Amino acid sequence: MRIDIWSDVVCPWCFIGKRRLETALSTFEHADGVEVVWHSYQLDPGAPATPVETVAEALGRKYGGGPDAGWAMIDRVEAVAAEEGMLWRHHDSLRVGTMDAHRLLHLALHEGGPALQGRVKEALLAAYFIDARNVADHDELRAIVTVAGLDAAAVDGVLRSTQYADEVWADIEQAQGFGATGVPFVVVDSKFGISGAQPAETFTQVLDRAWSESHPAVELVTTPGAGGDACGPDGCAI
Amino acid sequence: MRIDIWSDVVCPWCFIGKRRLETALSTFEHADGVEVVWHSYQLDPGAPATPVETVAEALGRKYGGGPDAGWAMIDRVEAVAAEEGMLWRHHDSLRVGTMDAHRLLHLALHEGGPALQGRVKEALLAAYFIDARNVADHDELRAIVTVAGLDAAAVDGVLRSTQYADEVWADIEQAQGFGATGVPFVVVDSKFGISGAQPAETFTQVLDRAWSESHPAVELVTTPGAGGDACGPDGCAI
Repeated sequence: MRIDIWSDVVCPWCFIGKRRLETALSTFEHADGVEVVWHSYQLDPGAPATPVETVAEALGRKYGGGPDAGWAMIDRVEAVAAEEGMLWRHHDSLRVGTMDAHRLLHLALHEGGPALQGRVKEALLAAYFIDARNVADHDELRAIVTVAGLDAAAVDGVLRSTQYADEVWADIEQAQGFGATGVPFVVVDSKFGISGAQPAETFTQVLDRAWSESHPAVELVTTPGAGGDACGPDGCAI
Repeated sequence: MRIDIWSDVVCPWCFIGKRRLETALSTFEHADGVEVVWHSYQLDPGAPATPVETVAEALGRKYGGGPDAGWAMIDRVEAVAAEEGMLWRHHDSLRVGTMDAHRLLHLALHEGGPALQGRVKEALLAAYFIDARNVADHDELRAIVTVAGLDAAAVDGVLRSTQYADEVWADIEQAQGFGATGVPFVVVDSKFGISGAQPAETFTQVLDRAWSESHPAVELVTTPGAGGDACGPDGCAI
């Protein structure tokens, strides 16, 4: 079973949704066969590569009320994160672009498959929300993703080029094709779309449904003798 | 897309069906993503490990008419094989058991995945039908499967033990669970069963149907806001 997740590195509900999905998977009987692939989505494509403000300041500016209002919004989402067992420092997070982080997530998928990509995704989210690190800065990015297992030379090759930018854009277009208007957007078995950080129980229900639908009794679309000769216990049709 | 095939190494329609499926796959647009896994089936579980007669003799004894009648049956199936581009020496094939061959096919799947297993399956079928080799003899088996890419030491380990016998029985039970009464029995995407060596066009139709059914538009089973918070272009629901 395959799970595709469109997500941004700076998206609070994406990190919370990731924990809720992990909770659902921890009790899912067939979790061993589940492969999770992360796809790119940019919540804030206009965010700068070099930060000029915190997320709290940006929120206060965008929605009014100043940094205090932004701070209060972050309080609320941090309280939800805490319910999922995470202590965030999101008040200190900077508003930055995520194009380079997404290109490195594609590098991880290419170099080490879903297992490596999953470690890099977790490392980037934790760096941003738990440690309030700058996930647009190249030195920071290199440090974060190499600890997660990416090769430093390959990372530098990507950061010095536009490698994997096309893959990022293709992911974003695909999300738009699904009608996704926000993230996280989870697709189970290329079939069931889950929008938002749903409760773990909702993920469990969809996992169960996807499993049962993808493992039906085999439907016999032809019968022996009807144009297709076979060999059986009584010999071969010759 | 995954194709599971229950088949026996000494089953003429299985080899013919393999060629017809390959013909269908050669024009199938999504063939690159198709993985074929071979499963065990024993047509003639009572066949001896050390041969005492040819298949022609066994057929003549079983159905009456003696070796000449068996020879005529083989003529007919060889004519069909020739239509698929294969020149067989099946008149010289010996009636032998296939338990050890099947155990080595499981070894191949375990050691090298579907790609290696596919090479070993082709080598065993070709050895039996085209070269009339004894696919129960351990020296012959070792020679056949190591040329196809299996490690000789691993092969000897399997032949000296009962390793993978449980996997062979599990395959046979699974085929019976599907209601398969003969082989080849092809299952496309765990969903569509095809019994017998159907014409290539039939395989093509089922491949097309399986592809379209497994790639529907994503069905949105939840909506943002309905219990699942998300981040979008207008910010995060906090």
